[in-house]
Amino acid sequence: MAVSVYCQSEASVKPVSSLNPDLKNSWDPSELLVHLHRLPDQRAAKMEEEKLCQFRPKSCLCPRTCCRWKGSLDAFIPHLKEQHKSIMMLQGRDILFLAADIDVPGAVNWVMLQSCFGFYFLLVLEKCEKHRGHQQFFAAVMLVGTRKQADNFTYRLELSGSCRRRLTWEAVPHSILEGVASVVANRDCLVFDKTTALLFADNGTLEIHVSIGCA
Amino acid sequence: MAVSVYCQSEASVKPVSSLNPDLKNSWDPSELLVHLHRLPDQRAAKMEEEKLCQFRPKSCLCPRTCCRWKGSLDAFIPHLKEQHKSIMMLQGRDILFLAADIDVPGAVNWVMLQSCFGFYFLLVLEKCEKHRGHQQFFAAVMLVGTRKQADNFTYRLELSGSCRRRLTWEAVPHSILEGVASVVANRDCLVFDKTTALLFADNGTLEIHVSIGCA
Repeated sequence: MAVSVYCQSEASVKPVSSLNPDLKNSWDPSELLVHLHRLPDQRAAKMEEEKLCQFRPKSCLCPRTCCRWKGSLDAFIPHLKEQHKSIMMLQGRDILFLAADIDVPGAVNWVMLQSCFGFYFLLVLEKCEKHRGHQQFFAAVMLVGTRKQADNFTYRLELSGSCRRRLTWEAVPHSILEGVASVVANRDCLVFDKTTALLFADNGTLEIHVSIGCA
Repeated sequence: MAVSVYCQSEASVKPVSSLNPDLKNSWDPSELLVHLHRLPDQRAAKMEEEKLCQFRPKSCLCPRTCCRWKGSLDAFIPHLKEQHKSIMMLQGRDILFLAADIDVPGAVNWVMLQSCFGFYFLLVLEKCEKHRGHQQFFAAVMLVGTRKQADNFTYRLELSGSCRRRLTWEAVPHSILEGVASVVANRDCLVFDKTTALLFADNGTLEIHVSIGCA
């Protein structure tokens, strides 16, 4: 089901002269310079605001998909349930995210949904080679909601292995509107390489304990 | 002070015929094959045993040092206190390991000593480029003691950052006899890359909370 609801706040970049009503009368080149310098920041902020707008139609937010769906944030979960039935969904604050066959070659994603506190969270484990010959895993929790809503939560990812080894990442979830690619690029998630993954894997399967909490 | 106490158990690889006293009389080629296959494992185990022997004189166990000292494990702490006075020592189960100037170029080590439970622990943060253009940090706690003694402890390394981010590694410490290089090669420590380090650093300094516990 494709839903297209356009963002209510359209971007607008005002001409320099309109930034300060007094600018025409009190001509001060240094003040103009300040405004000119501010402009790119203002544009960037507007673009970021647009990108994160929950009403603007987005492509399917499921990572590494060739799905052509477009819709608003509200329509994303119904779309997943209807068109991406292979994505498992579990209810509860504490769940186990199982990623099987982690040694399969190439770039791979493992995705599942967790539902608690009246929200849905997309759990993503991405394996890729950002540096030649060096496979890395990136695990993150993304709220299917806005960034403001995401600020109300924390999440914890935990890998437990033999010999009393434990690797834990705790953070505030990102909004799914920010995109998995941005989270991976900023390493703002649990990052580990293949050797570490094998320390924790059991027969090629990685068990990630996921806990969501209210901030 | 150089102390040389030789290991009491010398390595010895027995000839195949002596592995089983009955071998000469009851000739069974399949049994010989089993012994031949076992031999490399036995040699490797012997070599490992020798390497970890606390009485065998070792080169200075301080990572990345050009120190020419050789001595036994017992003599290592007096050597550090005498010859490596720049290495800070703190007492207590919970301490703060501060690594300044983490963005300094090249391969760098930060080392300190922690003393608790009647033992010394060497805390090591190593920065190096295992993959071209990809700087990684490796943090580990090594007991100045044998592997058997190390099994009685656990350690926890924790990085805390802004926006409620926390990265934690828990494990059994390695014996310093195993060497930092081996721990780093096996990724059996806290591993994070430069981007993650910058997420947690404050003005170029990384604060690592170190906790030692009894198993």
